[in-house]
Amino acid sequence: MSDASVLSALIAVNEQATFNRWAGFKVVSASAGEVELRMSWREEVGQYNGFLHAGLIGALLDTACGFAASTVSGPVLASQFSVRCIAPAKGGIFVVKGRVVKAGRRQVFAAADLYCQSLESKELTLCANGDAILVPVGIPQ
Amino acid sequence: MSDASVLSALIAVNEQATFNRWAGFKVVSASAGEVELRMSWREEVGQYNGFLHAGLIGALLDTACGFAASTVSGPVLASQFSVRCIAPAKGGIFVVKGRVVKAGRRQVFAAADLYCQSLESKELTLCANGDAILVPVGIPQ
Amino acid sequence: MSDASVLSALIAVNEQATFNRWAGFKVVSASAGEVELRMSWREEVGQYNGFLHAGLIGALLDTACGFAASTVSGPVLASQFSVRCIAPAKGGIFVVKGRVVKAGRRQVFAAADLYCQSLESKELTLCANGDAILVPVGIPQ
Amino acid sequence: MSDASVLSALIAVNEQATFNRWAGFKVVSASAGEVELRMSWREEVGQYNGFLHAGLIGALLDTACGFAASTVSGPVLASQFSVRCIAPAKGGIFVVKGRVVKAGRRQVFAAADLYCQSLESKELTLCANGDAILVPVGIPQ
Repeated sequence: MSDASVLSALIAVNEQATFNRWAGFKVVSASAGEVELRMSWREEVGQYNGFLHAGLIGALLDTACGFAASTVSGPVLASQFSVRCIAPAKGGIFVVKGRVVKAGRRQVFAAADLYCQSLESKELTLCANGDAILVPVGIPQ
Repeated sequence: MSDASVLSALIAVNEQATFNRWAGFKVVSASAGEVELRMSWREEVGQYNGFLHAGLIGALLDTACGFAASTVSGPVLASQFSVRCIAPAKGGIFVVKGRVVKAGRRQVFAAADLYCQSLESKELTLCANGDAILVPVGIPQ
Repeated sequence: MSDASVLSALIAVNEQATFNRWAGFKVVSASAGEVELRMSWREEVGQYNGFLHAGLIGALLDTACGFAASTVSGPVLASQFSVRCIAPAKGGIFVVKGRVVKAGRRQVFAAADLYCQSLESKELTLCANGDAILVPVGIPQ
Repeated sequence: MSDASVLSALIAVNEQATFNRWAGFKVVSASAGEVELRMSWREEVGQYNGFLHAGLIGALLDTACGFAASTVSGPVLASQFSVRCIAPAKGGIFVVKGRVVKAGRRQVFAAADLYCQSLESKELTLCANGDAILVPVGIPQ
């Protein structure tokens, strides 16, 4: 598949996930084993202190891992994911980059980094990272 | 603090978190080191296959860990959390139970179990579990 | 299999692992989905400060998870494991208890708790816990 | 500190850890935030199938994370570490590279990659990776 086909396939999957639509996840680039998504800040994604909710941090990282995995292994389900909250997640835009570390037949290892971007400086700050193990669902259970 | 005060304090914190309000998290019980939250299924919390989105699974587990930690250590921030997706998360109601494993001065270790409950059978099925390390924010950085 | 057969099978596997023999791991009890191992302190298992080396903490937890999984799913390989170091690991004897959380066809979720026991008081103190995802190796790759 | 001083300090710490001496860990390079260690295969580091024991995989990854953290934050203790077993760990030499992801005052986030190297081809194959959260022990508890 060309990168353009990979990207349009992921955009379609993303639109089908009601949570992703609600949260405003946008797939902005994709190629075999790599994806980038973005989400704009708005109040509903916050926790009581005005930072991005850890649940959204996890959702962005897990989605980036799963989408990256799907570019090489087809539909997958997460079996495990871990999140490290490295710096306060505050910003106008959140950018998450996912990549496949190793795609096995039965398990795909993926990782992702989440960056906060202020609307003024455009600078990206690493605010969280994570990893996931995904299981391809197309193979017989 | 009495359990009733612990519970009403957590209900207030939960109401302040815009994401928790949007997702419909409800704190249903709490005591020192233990909490239980519930969330009803609706389409916006789903992923493309109609199961609960892994991001929401993480958000429920992380929130339960954080709330449990806060009952013994005051306000906390998650520094790390892990999620294991044990069985497909499908049901009418999701019940998450969080507990403190060890509350240190600088780090609190907590764990949580997420159950799916069908509206018909009322049976609880373990669908995910997780753990978190939380850092108390009240102490000097 | 009877619990006695489960136990003697694990004792045999444990004796085959050269590392386990070196470290002095002993399988002391086992039944379907549950195992207990012990290891005595000696200088070679320590790190620079006289505490149990984090590598041994991980080895005990991972072994307990793997052995517990093998009682229900046959030979397994770890695909992921996590360790939380809850309290300083110091003592005369280390006791680790592993249990299966969920045994699926393609993945087994297991967890374990590690206790330190002083030679004087015999009291068990939780010093670490962990979890693992194990993959049965008997099924076709 | 110069890189040479960082390296000789780590070599000294490594020699003090009885487990590291037993296992044959060698610190081969170090600079601020980065370290590399090596270990040769021998039978005692194996599990029943002749692969490197998962406990040693964890010990190498955790040690690399801890040593990397110590180059920027002084003495540290692991509070959490995770290990992903990506490919069978078999080889003549194991090479582990650790790096600091973010060094905060109260927590250091580090990550490490473990490579297997066959004695013939010299090629490095990624066989595991991991991450750790370390707590500096020099600051008041």
